[in-house]
Amino acid sequence: MTLSGARIALLIEEMFEDGLVLTPRQLLMDAGAQVVYVAPLVGRGYRGLSGTIVTADMAAGAARAEAFDAVVIPGGYAPDRIRLRHAMVDLVRDTMAAGKLVAAIDHGPSVLINANALRDRTLTCWPSIAVDVKNAGGRYMDRQVHEDGNLITSRKIDDVVPFTEALIRQVAARRAAMA
Amino acid sequence: MTLSGARIALLIEEMFEDGLVLTPRQLLMDAGAQVVYVAPLVGRGYRGLSGTIVTADMAAGAARAEAFDAVVIPGGYAPDRIRLRHAMVDLVRDTMAAGKLVAAIDHGPSVLINANALRDRTLTCWPSIAVDVKNAGGRYMDRQVHEDGNLITSRKIDDVVPFTEALIRQVAARRAAMA
Repeated sequence: MTLSGARIALLIEEMFEDGLVLTPRQLLMDAGAQVVYVAPLVGRGYRGLSGTIVTADMAAGAARAEAFDAVVIPGGYAPDRIRLRHAMVDLVRDTMAAGKLVAAIDHGPSVLINANALRDRTLTCWPSIAVDVKNAGGRYMDRQVHEDGNLITSRKIDDVVPFTEALIRQVAARRAAMA
Repeated sequence: MTLSGARIALLIEEMFEDGLVLTPRQLLMDAGAQVVYVAPLVGRGYRGLSGTIVTADMAAGAARAEAFDAVVIPGGYAPDRIRLRHAMVDLVRDTMAAGKLVAAIDHGPSVLINANALRDRTLTCWPSIAVDVKNAGGRYMDRQVHEDGNLITSRKIDDVVPFTEALIRQVAARRAAMA
């Protein structure tokens, strides 16, 4: 399969938007990738806004950017909590600094603000944080999916399939280039 | 009573933190003020994170800064929705521009970012939005209550009583000065 051997970190905290976690995970797994739920505490359950419980596969403190093909930051209100978790912000910062893939949807780009990773980058997001993205030096666009080099962003749940497809395409292209 | 004749606008949207609405309202009413729930649609019910339903007394589009002694922006995730409501952001901007009292707690100060009202102002807030406040030109401090002229801010539910007491004191002082 396209993403056979790929490992994707999916960041988890309380109040994630369920479909922004479950749909990317399913599509990535369908493409052959291993999806690793990375959260503050390994083995703990985290609840989505609609009640889905996901159990963390790995503590953020144990997650290294080198171990993953990409980091996904989902939406809902989880990003408001993720941005307070130093180990999770560090993982995003290190992944961006290494030029590796980061995919963020809905409120997910707010974590990139804390990682100080948006200066002169072009991206989209949920409109409530557009002003924060701009104040952090990013260039905001209202688009279904925007790809700016290693940074893939989308606005909301309606965009989740093309968002994940863009991620799958980029992971596959990078793995093909390295093969 | 201290605040007899005073009118306070309390901004409401879905997902407010219940105690950040109910406690200020009660303390303000105990002091003699009239508290007006201002929301996108008059007569509609809005649900707090813990299930409280409050019914809007006034549509934001009908609310004018001149009609109130102060505007209160509560916390929880309501501010994430309020900042997308132009009439609510305009009310906050007009209130700040007139030098009238604005009191914001928890995530409430994020609405002041959209009102472009934080440049060179000193304030506190919930820590997840501290970076956004700083990127918007504000000076962030971690304090229970901070008063910077007409702007009163606090961090979280634990601070709600001294936060409201500071607001009551300032409304009373301004009314006494004008009497």
